[in-house]
Amino acid sequence: MSPRQPSPLFQGPANAGRHAIRCLVPDLPPVSALLPYLERIEQNRWYSNFGPLLLEYENRLAALTGVGSVGGQCVTVSSGTAALALGIAALDLPAGSRALLPALTFPATLLAALRCGLAPVLCDVSPETWALTPEIALASLKYRDCRLVLPVATFGSPLAADAWDRFALATDACVLIDAAAALGLQQIGKSANVAFSLHATKPLGIGEGGVFVTSDADLAERVRRITNFGFERGVVIYPGGTNAKLSEYAAAVGLAQLDRWPELLNRRLAGWLKYRSVLDELSGVRVQAGLDQHPPAVVSVNLPADASHAASALAAVGIETRRWYLPPLHHHPLFASTDRVGPDGGTSLPVTEQLARHNLGVPFHVYLSDDDMETISGSLGTCLDAC
Amino acid sequence: MSPRQPSPLFQGPANAGRHAIRCLVPDLPPVSALLPYLERIEQNRWYSNFGPLLLEYENRLAALTGVGSVGGQCVTVSSGTAALALGIAALDLPAGSRALLPALTFPATLLAALRCGLAPVLCDVSPETWALTPEIALASLKYRDCRLVLPVATFGSPLAADAWDRFALATDACVLIDAAAALGLQQIGKSANVAFSLHATKPLGIGEGGVFVTSDADLAERVRRITNFGFERGVVIYPGGTNAKLSEYAAAVGLAQLDRWPELLNRRLAGWLKYRSVLDELSGVRVQAGLDQHPPAVVSVNLPADASHAASALAAVGIETRRWYLPPLHHHPLFASTDRVGPDGGTSLPVTEQLARHNLGVPFHVYLSDDDMETISGSLGTCLDAC
Repeated sequence: MSPRQPSPLFQGPANAGRHAIRCLVPDLPPVSALLPYLERIEQNRWYSNFGPLLLEYENRLAALTGVGSVGGQCVTVSSGTAALALGIAALDLPAGSRALLPALTFPATLLAALRCGLAPVLCDVSPETWALTPEIALASLKYRDCRLVLPVATFGSPLAADAWDRFALATDACVLIDAAAALGLQQIGKSANVAFSLHATKPLGIGEGGVFVTSDADLAERVRRITNFGFERGVVIYPGGTNAKLSEYAAAVGLAQLDRWPELLNRRLAGWLKYRSVLDELSGVRVQAGLDQHPPAVVSVNLPADASHAASALAAVGIETRRWYLPPLHHHPLFASTDRVGPDGGTSLPVTEQLARHNLGVPFHVYLSDDDMETISGSLGTCLDAC
Repeated sequence: MSPRQPSPLFQGPANAGRHAIRCLVPDLPPVSALLPYLERIEQNRWYSNFGPLLLEYENRLAALTGVGSVGGQCVTVSSGTAALALGIAALDLPAGSRALLPALTFPATLLAALRCGLAPVLCDVSPETWALTPEIALASLKYRDCRLVLPVATFGSPLAADAWDRFALATDACVLIDAAAALGLQQIGKSANVAFSLHATKPLGIGEGGVFVTSDADLAERVRRITNFGFERGVVIYPGGTNAKLSEYAAAVGLAQLDRWPELLNRRLAGWLKYRSVLDELSGVRVQAGLDQHPPAVVSVNLPADASHAASALAAVGIETRRWYLPPLHHHPLFASTDRVGPDGGTSLPVTEQLARHNLGVPFHVYLSDDDMETISGSLGTCLDAC
């Protein structure tokens, strides 16, 4: 019996090799930057269960996100999906409660709600920011009584936490922002909580991991206990418990990544401003609104034509593309019958459908040169002229 | 606002410092052993999503557990609890199906069943091996129709996989062995699947992680897809999906740990044989049956008196103890009303209750010297004479 061969599951680095310009290149700390932290682990002989490096990492994340100054906390977990799922579990909503979320998101948002026994309701997004806004959520609540709203920081573009705080106050619904790709940029609300991913493909990634962030220290402690089987004083008292803790090794990567963050963010922002000016020259090509101050995590462009043609044309000249968040949730076989509420109370989600047909994820990472950007823009322009 | 202080959640290294003889000392690879693997990660620039180190780790685990030679697979996941939960999810049992498990186990066994929407049924264990046996399971099935049985390799003592295969064949129930602490020792069945933990406190630990192992390659692939949101060809088709993947960093620790395993196992076995001979001299003190060839992961002794007195007496002389698996599940507030089926069809679980009162976890790790063993045995003897 020969050893198992590489999985066909993953379309990443292994397949990306055939592209001259890759869509996404993870940027994690070099081994030399990890070493001082690894040596501390070896000295401590403490490898998980809320160790000293993890505590330091969570405290530094609390400073980065700003919740440290208002008595809030960051709770690290095994993935961004776990940050969503355990954050929802800690809210302890009645089983079967409705949860509103945009159809344009990565499936994790929906899977987290399902895991907690909630009834998901999919809605449309803004044609400008491509995100679920408080206005859309308010309109949706006229048709469905939702106890939880899961707005998504689309493609890593941060949402207005204060607007979601006002929404929560006005409606009494809980708000948990899925800001998987926006750690370091997304603000935390007074009542609007936030889940981040630390996956390798995220700007502050560590490999695998997630963070739940809240201004409510009691809620943070409930989430933390749920990551540790729901224990309190040696007995299980919180429902939904599991093991979703991060190891000290993961915290070591996280600390080394935080050391590099100011420089990384500067490079990402400079690259994004240049890239946007290049993309702006293409007639009929739109990028999402709201990214004047921040770089997105990934760049998705809205084309004047069906994106699948452009994807093929770019692939033919060695430019890798992705269809981030696509298909939208209700086009996945498993979610085809999930409840939906459109702008008029019906089931059609026109903005999402337009983005699903016309959006294409193009390369963006710190290794993308000015020449690469011109090549991408030129190839896209040629293709659009021909379409 | 000052940074958050160390969590009171964990009673490990931080509190263990006041004991001269610690109960459990994790034994993970030194930094020097990690370096070659970390350098490979840096060269690959591949940090998660079924990377090359993870594939190598899973293939080496398949060789270690023996499933590689029968076409089976090891699927790494984020924790031992996730190995159980996602293994159960992949079986796709009808919601509300009953799952039989011993009341004497760590809460993760039960939490995994609950997460999958099953109805747990707690049963008693053997007075010799302290485990749920096929005989006990058969007797329980007379009173409750269970679609799944979750036997537990108590304290890391491996179970007879072939006996569980025969049980599965005879009853048509699925079997998933929770062998959290028995990686490297527990055999895999033809139909009896196994979940292992890679937590720092386990003999082959890597910090945080787990492994689902099966002889059924199709089942393995379903579990693997569920660890990656249930995706197949870009759309979600498997229910129960989440992100439970292990990073390449975790695989690096795992590979370095496997390199050390033959030596580690020898040291653990030699220590155990010596320890058992010392403990055997204590009148009325029993260890679990079935550990002639293997060391357990942790040592729990059954005392002729209530174990809480001995725990206090040992603590007073600087010997740390633990009450592994205690209280039994039905004594946790959250599980007090969980269905139970005793030997006579009633709700009393006499063996579990006896072990709950009389069992005490005593120190066992590779740093335990012969002198330490004599000290522990002597202190235990003095305390038992006095009780």
